[in-house]
Amino acid sequence: MSKGTVVLAYSGGLDTSCILVWLKEEGYDVITYLANIGQEEDFDAAKKKAESLGAKKVFIEDLRAEFVEEFIWPSVQANAVYEDRYLLGTSVARPCIARRQIQIARQEGAQYVSHGATGKGNDQIRFELTCYALYPEVKIIAPWRIPEFYNRFVGRKDLMEYAEKHGIPVPVTPKAPWSMDANLMHISYESGILENPKSHAPADLYLMTKSPEDAPNSPDVLEIEFKKGVPIKVTHVKEGKSKDTPLDIFSYLNEIGGRHGVGRIDIVENRFIGMKSRGIYETPGGTILYHAHLDIETFTMDREVRRIKQGLGVKFAEMLYNGFWYSPECEFVRHCIDKSQESVEGKVQLSVFKGQVYILGRESPKSLYNEELVSMDVQGDYDPCDASGFIKINAVRSVSLRSKLNCPKKFYFQEGFLSINHI
Amino acid sequence: MSKGTVVLAYSGGLDTSCILVWLKEEGYDVITYLANIGQEEDFDAAKKKAESLGAKKVFIEDLRAEFVEEFIWPSVQANAVYEDRYLLGTSVARPCIARRQIQIARQEGAQYVSHGATGKGNDQIRFELTCYALYPEVKIIAPWRIPEFYNRFVGRKDLMEYAEKHGIPVPVTPKAPWSMDANLMHISYESGILENPKSHAPADLYLMTKSPEDAPNSPDVLEIEFKKGVPIKVTHVKEGKSKDTPLDIFSYLNEIGGRHGVGRIDIVENRFIGMKSRGIYETPGGTILYHAHLDIETFTMDREVRRIKQGLGVKFAEMLYNGFWYSPECEFVRHCIDKSQESVEGKVQLSVFKGQVYILGRESPKSLYNEELVSMDVQGDYDPCDASGFIKINAVRSVSLRSKLNCPKKFYFQEGFLSINHI
Amino acid sequence: MSKGTVVLAYSGGLDTSCILVWLKEEGYDVITYLANIGQEEDFDAAKKKAESLGAKKVFIEDLRAEFVEEFIWPSVQANAVYEDRYLLGTSVARPCIARRQIQIARQEGAQYVSHGATGKGNDQIRFELTCYALYPEVKIIAPWRIPEFYNRFVGRKDLMEYAEKHGIPVPVTPKAPWSMDANLMHISYESGILENPKSHAPADLYLMTKSPEDAPNSPDVLEIEFKKGVPIKVTHVKEGKSKDTPLDIFSYLNEIGGRHGVGRIDIVENRFIGMKSRGIYETPGGTILYHAHLDIETFTMDREVRRIKQGLGVKFAEMLYNGFWYSPECEFVRHCIDKSQESVEGKVQLSVFKGQVYILGRESPKSLYNEELVSMDVQGDYDPCDASGFIKINAVRSVSLRSKLNCPKKFYFQEGFLSINHI
Amino acid sequence: MSKGTVVLAYSGGLDTSCILVWLKEEGYDVITYLANIGQEEDFDAAKKKAESLGAKKVFIEDLRAEFVEEFIWPSVQANAVYEDRYLLGTSVARPCIARRQIQIARQEGAQYVSHGATGKGNDQIRFELTCYALYPEVKIIAPWRIPEFYNRFVGRKDLMEYAEKHGIPVPVTPKAPWSMDANLMHISYESGILENPKSHAPADLYLMTKSPEDAPNSPDVLEIEFKKGVPIKVTHVKEGKSKDTPLDIFSYLNEIGGRHGVGRIDIVENRFIGMKSRGIYETPGGTILYHAHLDIETFTMDREVRRIKQGLGVKFAEMLYNGFWYSPECEFVRHCIDKSQESVEGKVQLSVFKGQVYILGRESPKSLYNEELVSMDVQGDYDPCDASGFIKINAVRSVSLRSKLNCPKKFYFQEGFLSINHI
Repeated sequence: MSKGTVVLAYSGGLDTSCILVWLKEEGYDVITYLANIGQEEDFDAAKKKAESLGAKKVFIEDLRAEFVEEFIWPSVQANAVYEDRYLLGTSVARPCIARRQIQIARQEGAQYVSHGATGKGNDQIRFELTCYALYPEVKIIAPWRIPEFYNRFVGRKDLMEYAEKHGIPVPVTPKAPWSMDANLMHISYESGILENPKSHAPADLYLMTKSPEDAPNSPDVLEIEFKKGVPIKVTHVKEGKSKDTPLDIFSYLNEIGGRHGVGRIDIVENRFIGMKSRGIYETPGGTILYHAHLDIETFTMDREVRRIKQGLGVKFAEMLYNGFWYSPECEFVRHCIDKSQESVEGKVQLSVFKGQVYILGRESPKSLYNEELVSMDVQGDYDPCDASGFIKINAVRSVSLRSKLNCPKKFYFQEGFLSINHI
Repeated sequence: MSKGTVVLAYSGGLDTSCILVWLKEEGYDVITYLANIGQEEDFDAAKKKAESLGAKKVFIEDLRAEFVEEFIWPSVQANAVYEDRYLLGTSVARPCIARRQIQIARQEGAQYVSHGATGKGNDQIRFELTCYALYPEVKIIAPWRIPEFYNRFVGRKDLMEYAEKHGIPVPVTPKAPWSMDANLMHISYESGILENPKSHAPADLYLMTKSPEDAPNSPDVLEIEFKKGVPIKVTHVKEGKSKDTPLDIFSYLNEIGGRHGVGRIDIVENRFIGMKSRGIYETPGGTILYHAHLDIETFTMDREVRRIKQGLGVKFAEMLYNGFWYSPECEFVRHCIDKSQESVEGKVQLSVFKGQVYILGRESPKSLYNEELVSMDVQGDYDPCDASGFIKINAVRSVSLRSKLNCPKKFYFQEGFLSINHI
Repeated sequence: MSKGTVVLAYSGGLDTSCILVWLKEEGYDVITYLANIGQEEDFDAAKKKAESLGAKKVFIEDLRAEFVEEFIWPSVQANAVYEDRYLLGTSVARPCIARRQIQIARQEGAQYVSHGATGKGNDQIRFELTCYALYPEVKIIAPWRIPEFYNRFVGRKDLMEYAEKHGIPVPVTPKAPWSMDANLMHISYESGILENPKSHAPADLYLMTKSPEDAPNSPDVLEIEFKKGVPIKVTHVKEGKSKDTPLDIFSYLNEIGGRHGVGRIDIVENRFIGMKSRGIYETPGGTILYHAHLDIETFTMDREVRRIKQGLGVKFAEMLYNGFWYSPECEFVRHCIDKSQESVEGKVQLSVFKGQVYILGRESPKSLYNEELVSMDVQGDYDPCDASGFIKINAVRSVSLRSKLNCPKKFYFQEGFLSINHI
Repeated sequence: MSKGTVVLAYSGGLDTSCILVWLKEEGYDVITYLANIGQEEDFDAAKKKAESLGAKKVFIEDLRAEFVEEFIWPSVQANAVYEDRYLLGTSVARPCIARRQIQIARQEGAQYVSHGATGKGNDQIRFELTCYALYPEVKIIAPWRIPEFYNRFVGRKDLMEYAEKHGIPVPVTPKAPWSMDANLMHISYESGILENPKSHAPADLYLMTKSPEDAPNSPDVLEIEFKKGVPIKVTHVKEGKSKDTPLDIFSYLNEIGGRHGVGRIDIVENRFIGMKSRGIYETPGGTILYHAHLDIETFTMDREVRRIKQGLGVKFAEMLYNGFWYSPECEFVRHCIDKSQESVEGKVQLSVFKGQVYILGRESPKSLYNEELVSMDVQGDYDPCDASGFIKINAVRSVSLRSKLNCPKKFYFQEGFLSINHI
């Protein structure tokens, strides 16, 4: 008798194929689910493979459009960056994938979900927090955290042997000496030979971007139009070509960014689980959008609103990285950020060249930029005398503090505000 | 009889030459002071010019070493960036320049200081807050905020006429249709034709960096060594060349960065005075250091310390931009940031190419990176089962919230944590 | 010929009466405006006085209801406290008063507004930032910042002489040796003999609250009901009496709080203008509400939402104190805080006694409190084993750091995480 | 053969006595350790009981002085408050207790430590994070998280039976229907009948403070002197009595606060583990110090330093609550806060009466309060005209925004800065 039904996030690869069979061995009915979020994949082959391995049902789901609109767009609005560098391409995909998995589990009456994420990584957390949030009673089977599983499959060799024994097709091409994760937003590379933080990444690692050295010798100039903080149109200025649906816009930016080698980073980051890890990422379209959005936002948003929103964006990035997309606080912050984007509207022109994005200019019907006010040549509605008062009042705190110190001349340049007895 | 002595921050240009003469006309004794903070300048010519215009005394001060060590280095430690983009090259020079001006004023018994900064900009504030902090009784003459002055000199033409009338040498080359400010850290360009935020910057604007399009077709690879968060050595990996004093290190990074077109940005920013302005900056060496420091810092600093320090860095950047270097709060924050850098030590290898800086690898005797702990191939001293408990406890808040909602199946993927009556 | 029309914020007192006459002398038509925001005042007498002094028109406006609903309620939602102690009773009244003043100015076609606030205080800023925000072209006449005025009226004696000369009724009772500001939310006392921060406030200073020593010897127990973070009903538990409109609720809380001496504080605070000042405040109803709201909020709001909201509340309090109620950032923050209050609903029981408010219990249909989950006697849907993993994963950062230190036994209790070379 | 040696945090009560015997049953050698951190306890009796139950060694450690100096004092400097209300009396004791436990474990060569904290609370985390930080290789036995233990001892009855069977003296007085935790800083009450958040706490619950209703009818006035942010002397103004060692000062403040019923709160708080719990606390001395320190700090600290320090204090309180005293980030924050306290020095006079603390006045040699500057009667070194410029520059952002809106008169009071198309 079956122990129940599991919806397994299935990639078609060796690991999750072994998990599929192992789950069956353990007495579960297995439904496989493979999300198309823009990765290169032979989805048909994966489907057939799953069926041949005994999956009760196979779901292949195209989530690309909702991935862009519901997950990438809010991240663009937030200028979400983790630890000042990482654009969160993996993190943002996880709640999107897990949400559909939960929908399938509920629809199919499955009490279990399962995934092949490791026990040391962030993804297990991102998947499972989403699952628990959307399906509180769900039971999660994470084989890489179950001793009977991980003690049996200590290395790749054990998986290969198991595969051969159970008729699981074994990959013929040797595995790259690192692991990768790909979706519409980025490809990440980690583990294996990359674990040594000192060693340089091999030149042939990157799949989504050309090497800047091999990139075209002349730039592509784009104009990106925003409304409410999200892109609504991208135009190639010279070619006149344009895109205007979310998925098309993002895919086109990937194409242009990829061609010019945009968005490669090599970082050490801090996992939620408490350890540092080294990751290499390429995020071509996301990097272009990051720069463009930052520009139009600063152009159209009040300084102090921006300051508060910047702090919320940092928090949002941490939540996203840690797997809390579906949490009260992340919903709250997304709401606030969305509110801040009401007037983030206009066009940014930028040049993409040899791994870099250069902002060239911007315009907006809602800009708060006041050319007359700022002009050096026109006085405008501004009285320079006001600045004197402004400065003097801003100096009140430190002037009265310094006077109090009654600092002797020979130490006039010495610091020491804090402990007024220094001097 | 003299109204007193003024120490004038003198650039040798048309504006401050007119101010010099005007101050004399107004009855002041004028001492000129010109700081060498790395800008291209004929200091001898400026000296002679000031003397010929009647300066009572002329100071030319080489502040380059202290500028790097006491001002740029703390900014590097802080990863100081204003509004996510601007590396603060102008802001960081101001307290350095004004500090020496105040030292001269005190030493020469001058009650007044003067400068040629405009009434709409940030620099007036940065200069004057420094002056008031270090010399609370000082009186500041800011001609561009004095109606008799600015109403008399409405345009450049008025200055030219005044110059001719008073024997002030008039520049023969036409002025660029924008204004610029240069120092060791960067050159900024603004005003004039750049005031239209939509128009692209002319290709020939940049003086410190080559155009990425004309930059060499092969990268330079550098190794930068840090100790306590500041660079102590830079080595050109191929050529074996190295530098190890602050000024030499920074100048060399400028040379390499400049050759590859690194550090150009075109932004709209928010001035302290409340208006938005457009600025174009090139910060070659500073940009390389920003990336390198960020990398070694994340490698050697605890995650949560880093998070707090990141917030302090954002505050530091705002203070620096707004002119509060010499303030109790900035001293406090510099102290805290400095404390955070105690273990920020090690070497970063990076490649500079076509406007971009690529981190290649890093090593450190104080790294918190634990290769065994993070390894996918080795279990290490880590029990994957712990992650299950970690995730489940992290889900307690949202699980109990969702359970409470008792959300009906058909809405299982609907959001609505905040207002639990939605569903 | 008239220089134009001024709307003067008129209190009926000596200062603004002199200002009224002085403005007429200066050639303005003067409209007086007196807001009833709950202060003790003979509004009829003030009206007659203004008319007799030559006011062209006299407005007496009852703003009490809108003051509570539109200004106090958002502050309650925010738990707004300045510098950890001050409940902002003066600050919150200023935008309310100035808004109506601007409405009158626009409606009456006046180009000017005027007020009697001093040049060293916060109120001038709060009034004027509101005026500029709502009527950008307005011109403001602040006599206490105009040399001809403040040099003429150096002390109270000068005002008295001027009053006598111009037929302004002179107060017969001697002025208290401090100044005060009263409204529905609080009375503030400052200046005069209170300027010495060491000297104790006189016992007879307080007008809104009884001395706790003279307060009743038994408590009053109230139940306050909240919806969306604002009180919708207050009930006296024993007497059964209840109030349910905003103004009635707040007035009743003032009555109860006042009777028991609730909400007295004596603080030194930091003005926006940069100086420290000493203020004494009594905020009876506001203090009760502060405690009650804090309680129901923590009961019904998710922990992490609360943490973010707490930070926004601190920012809101600073904006409010500094006069930025009508600013983009304050509008933004109010919106976010309002969003956070959607589920802040329920009843709080509290006891008011001898200057103190004691929370006794709370209940809510939207509480996130889960009695079973937290119970020591019932396991509930919680597996204690999960906590082990949670703790161990939370220890990963410091365990791996400490292991690295390889700290010798004799120093095992020594600190020194930050600089790992200490040990 | 012994499985090894365990150092058990032993309270002398039923639970830990059963744990002691159970550990022996399980094959461990047990060393008991009981910390005196100021709770009421018969330490001799506890010692004898442990010995009679078979403890291999018994440690009774008087930690009161170090508890005050090394743990409470930094919390006073930080103004540490969790969720705006809780003064962290339990949290701050945990690292102090666990540190000594670890010292004993290392000294006695024990590989294990054990405690009787429950699996749903915060204390398990605070104990264990300290243990792991100071003794990374330690193994922790937490019986209330071990199924064999907690399934065997489901209710108090099981413990009683076990006790009787194993010769463990059974308490004769019935247990209070709640649990409590006492130390020098506070007593906390929770669980049992208190788990219903609506029900009022029984009047006879409190042990450390008198009921305000029964408190003396006249206040005690104290003067507390601070240096570097910590109290160095407390004087009873009338009686002339004074105390000047940390432990004496704190004990005396407890005595005075206790007599007047100071520091009682009834709150619902958010545990680190994700659930809300109801706690009742009495913190007499800590509450007095909180108010006094806040006062002297604001009096002597620059406004902007204070603002940054306030944020650090909130973070410190969260770390402390969550158990991260011994963590890199908490060490860092303590260092920063300590730095901020350099000039926090002076005397505060306050009155303690009927549950409340009233600040009466303060003085300091390092005050930044400038009586002349703030005076309403003296101009001082302050030009009121400067305020005009200050205000106008502060209005630039919103004036230019509003002008842009070109808001029609009839909507002049309407809000809508953020979405400039509203109007």
